[in-house]
Amino acid sequence: MQDYKIINSIKCLSIDMINNASSGHPGVALGAAPIIYTLYKNHLNIDLDDDKWINRDRFVLSGGHASSLLYSMLFYVGYLSLEDLKCFRRINSNTPGHPEIETKGVDISTGPLGQGIANAVGMAIAERYYNALNKDIDYYTYVMCGDGDLMEGISYEATSLAGSLNLNKLIILYDSNDVSLDGNTNITFNEDIKKRFEAINWNYIKVDDGIDIEKIDNAINNAKISDKPTIIEIKTIIGKDSINEGTNKVHGTPLTKEDIYNIKNKLNLSSIPFDIDMNLVYEFRYYLKNRCKRKHEIKNIDENIDVSALKYDLDVNEPLRVINGKIMNEISNHLQYFMGGAADVSSSTKTYLKNEGVFNKDNYSGKNINYGVREHAMGAISNGIASCNIRCFSSTFLSFADYLKPAIRMSALMKLPVTYIFTHDSINIGSDGATHQPIEQLSMLRNIPNLNVFRPADTKELLGCWNEILTLSTPSALVLSRNSTLQLENSNPYSVKKGAYIVKKEKDNLDGIIIATGSEVGLAIKISEELEQYDINIRVVSMPCMSLYEKNDEEYKESVLPINNNIFALEYASSSDWYRYVKDEKYLININNFGKSGTEKEILEYYELDYESVKNYIIDLLK
Amino acid sequence: MQDYKIINSIKCLSIDMINNASSGHPGVALGAAPIIYTLYKNHLNIDLDDDKWINRDRFVLSGGHASSLLYSMLFYVGYLSLEDLKCFRRINSNTPGHPEIETKGVDISTGPLGQGIANAVGMAIAERYYNALNKDIDYYTYVMCGDGDLMEGISYEATSLAGSLNLNKLIILYDSNDVSLDGNTNITFNEDIKKRFEAINWNYIKVDDGIDIEKIDNAINNAKISDKPTIIEIKTIIGKDSINEGTNKVHGTPLTKEDIYNIKNKLNLSSIPFDIDMNLVYEFRYYLKNRCKRKHEIKNIDENIDVSALKYDLDVNEPLRVINGKIMNEISNHLQYFMGGAADVSSSTKTYLKNEGVFNKDNYSGKNINYGVREHAMGAISNGIASCNIRCFSSTFLSFADYLKPAIRMSALMKLPVTYIFTHDSINIGSDGATHQPIEQLSMLRNIPNLNVFRPADTKELLGCWNEILTLSTPSALVLSRNSTLQLENSNPYSVKKGAYIVKKEKDNLDGIIIATGSEVGLAIKISEELEQYDINIRVVSMPCMSLYEKNDEEYKESVLPINNNIFALEYASSSDWYRYVKDEKYLININNFGKSGTEKEILEYYELDYESVKNYIIDLLK
Repeated sequence: MQDYKIINSIKCLSIDMINNASSGHPGVALGAAPIIYTLYKNHLNIDLDDDKWINRDRFVLSGGHASSLLYSMLFYVGYLSLEDLKCFRRINSNTPGHPEIETKGVDISTGPLGQGIANAVGMAIAERYYNALNKDIDYYTYVMCGDGDLMEGISYEATSLAGSLNLNKLIILYDSNDVSLDGNTNITFNEDIKKRFEAINWNYIKVDDGIDIEKIDNAINNAKISDKPTIIEIKTIIGKDSINEGTNKVHGTPLTKEDIYNIKNKLNLSSIPFDIDMNLVYEFRYYLKNRCKRKHEIKNIDENIDVSALKYDLDVNEPLRVINGKIMNEISNHLQYFMGGAADVSSSTKTYLKNEGVFNKDNYSGKNINYGVREHAMGAISNGIASCNIRCFSSTFLSFADYLKPAIRMSALMKLPVTYIFTHDSINIGSDGATHQPIEQLSMLRNIPNLNVFRPADTKELLGCWNEILTLSTPSALVLSRNSTLQLENSNPYSVKKGAYIVKKEKDNLDGIIIATGSEVGLAIKISEELEQYDINIRVVSMPCMSLYEKNDEEYKESVLPINNNIFALEYASSSDWYRYVKDEKYLININNFGKSGTEKEILEYYELDYESVKNYIIDLLK
Repeated sequence: MQDYKIINSIKCLSIDMINNASSGHPGVALGAAPIIYTLYKNHLNIDLDDDKWINRDRFVLSGGHASSLLYSMLFYVGYLSLEDLKCFRRINSNTPGHPEIETKGVDISTGPLGQGIANAVGMAIAERYYNALNKDIDYYTYVMCGDGDLMEGISYEATSLAGSLNLNKLIILYDSNDVSLDGNTNITFNEDIKKRFEAINWNYIKVDDGIDIEKIDNAINNAKISDKPTIIEIKTIIGKDSINEGTNKVHGTPLTKEDIYNIKNKLNLSSIPFDIDMNLVYEFRYYLKNRCKRKHEIKNIDENIDVSALKYDLDVNEPLRVINGKIMNEISNHLQYFMGGAADVSSSTKTYLKNEGVFNKDNYSGKNINYGVREHAMGAISNGIASCNIRCFSSTFLSFADYLKPAIRMSALMKLPVTYIFTHDSINIGSDGATHQPIEQLSMLRNIPNLNVFRPADTKELLGCWNEILTLSTPSALVLSRNSTLQLENSNPYSVKKGAYIVKKEKDNLDGIIIATGSEVGLAIKISEELEQYDINIRVVSMPCMSLYEKNDEEYKESVLPINNNIFALEYASSSDWYRYVKDEKYLININNFGKSGTEKEILEYYELDYESVKNYIIDLLK
């Protein structure tokens, strides 16, 4: 195999792509081509005919701006065509600006730095779990990253957990070039990488010359037999062979024509863009096809259950988060590939699966992951696990949803069916104060495209939510009260799929409608009942999932929320989501300030969101 | 001084507070009382008569759940009364569930883990900057944290930067008790703390017995003379002397009455709640008053400028982010206490202050902070800097605002005037693809209480935004286009304070109104001009700041946006903020899906947000 000829060809293809698109990142393509080549040629075990083969080795390009390099490699592999490369960064192409999971051979979408490292930890967790159940699954997870990835907090969180879990089939290929966007990394990043990773139970290997593919190859071989996760620090030169090599000038803008001409000249390649020796390509594909052997056939995972039909031992007087824990435990009894954990709050979020054991280095068949206080990594690790076809959940308090927002966005972008469980869902948690009281979080989540946000009113709706969650192929957020909620007479698990429904009919001529969610539905019903004494007839609409409601046809919507009515929106959260349903902001019964520390009663009264205040407000407005 | 008597008294006060409130965290109060006592008695230099003294040593309680411990200590200091302690966790008290900056003696609000460590890094940066200008300012910054803080990614980011900046007056007191909420920390956290911190250029000191105040005292003395930042790992026993000492059972729920009785008995203290020997308190206060000497008077910082009146050398054809950089440079010429930086994207966000130098260990008078790719820490460090009265900015791309959401929330909660500058503000950035194209971020930011979000349409509005930003005592987000925007004929810097205003009057009878922000205002005006040919008379309202607009009286609002009109909302972002202004969702011209990789033209056409599509859509609707 003419290794360096192919490496040079990959470099030049990347440059051609970037130049053709008039944007992209040539620096890493010129610097790191030998790394990706060595990995694909000698190590990555994939199926050229089935890029979704469940036991394939995973490859995550954490520094997603190196997309051109990955695509050039995938062209050599045979997953992409030359035409794909020519459409780099064009709309609806297979080669977008940052790698997207929809592209053949791309195991996960990347772009925001650090996410990929945590995704890889999730893939390595999935492998250990599969392997504990079936030794035929035994893939490696490789992740290539740059300095920027290692500066991100999420990478520390994820690698610390990986060390603790001893994920020895996880290998980081660290493209260490001492340069990031704003200059030399030493202006802000002066870590002893060896020491940093040894401090968290990793194996560290250094390759002092990132051009030498034999050294890279040896390092990967050693990493594969290590009994710990391994980081291989490979010293490279950003923008190698460009006139600006070794500087940040070559990071993120296309090279000049003259520079490209000189590079190609130096590398002894045609100056015509995309002018490729296809014999070399076919030779590589033939070689790869022979090296990669699909060892075992493993059947696809496809588990489905009707959650509402399962048998539970529930006490509806318990807090919804407690009931949810019991439901999850029952679901877990019926779903093998269902796992997850909490960010050190499982004793509060109640998502622990009692009979399933803890996932750790002594027991990889455990389904409970102790994430520690690492919310951000938890989200991104969940994406990695979900990308390997495991139904995966993670939990923390709703106000800390902020910490994992970037990871939730990636779940949504990739349509990975991760379930985020957020408890302690409103100011009524009381005395922990404003930092722990969510206000704007519900709106933040509802505004993420592709994410369904569920806030059930009682146990029946909660069961319905789980039915939807387990059916959907997109991510969900399940938002739960810390407190007990009323068990409603007319709530219905099968109405959850409609997103909203009439949970209490008006007694007589319709005077007004209250839309409510979660614990506020019970409050709305009680108010509606009392108002009947004043001859005010209120319909209560429970809206456990706004996005699902919006998908209904107009006829259904009109039957639930007839327009030009006195529609109130009652939710202990910010108003912005609710303007669309009310005719005037006077009908919004929400909170748009931060909360306070106090008892539940004190707080609800202070914000005029207690039973009496809300009731009187509605009476006043309808008079 | 009867040290242990006071320490025991602090422990028991904390327990009494928690029991009185029926909620709180006794574990850390019993475990870490000797640490906080030693710090306050022997080291922390404060002014008992002026808790805002600018040269005071800072103390950050990063694990804010230890609030009862801090408040008990502040009672001994004299900042809080016994009555305050009795109102622990009650509404509008001085002693909320987690520490809030409004309370005397609380230097910063904490609660969400990890934030405090980064805040402390900010305070230490502020000290070095002040000190470089005036040697009279020379305070220490102490931060007490627990295991949970050190698991959070933000703490790695912040401490890595602190090591790189060599902030040797920063001292972490690590309450190392091996227990967190979900159990022993070793279930998920197995780091060699010494090695971890030495890898990032910190000094590490271990105190093997957290009861021994002499050892704690020696360690702090050594830390103060270290030439690097120091972490002191102090081994403590969570819930010391409780029947559940050393376990997670004692972390977050009140102790039983029996347990409290036994603890008090063991510590030889009165079993009556809040029964305090005031002589001991006065003795401590007298001692402290004598030890703490206010060394120097330093005048308060109060800088104000009229940004619009400054002289600039601007080319309005340049992208708004470039123009903004020039404005910031001019502002910096007039404001000494104005500093900040970017998360490794200053070459793209253009916020570098060219004549001001880089803040680093060789030049603490530099105003540019190289944060590295550490967005989350950047936000929280900014809070620390701002808490020390320095106008502080930080910048990255708008889509990565997600990474610092938790810190922005804390800015808003504390009303710290941090300026967040977010460029690359819409899908029109093009080819970097969906991960880099903000959709829901504008709405996420606008929903944070106390945060003003500015999105100026052109250079004049941008100047107006800066006038507001520098006047406000609350945080701001300044959202800027990567691209060039049109310079508008009738835009006005002084109208920004109104939040929205008529930037183009309708020609004749009003047929419709387009509200737009940022780069879309120019688009709206061009469309309005062309529509005049069709005899369609459109008013264009520029809304650079929605929250400021909402503060206007009804008369002004009616003059700008008369109700029952055909009001369109044109913004390249999600719709949710705009329902309040339109009568029907048909009038929303937004994007509620993720973006795509492509050229700007391709993308705008694909989403039907290009000039022709928007124009035709409006014509159709008004016909």
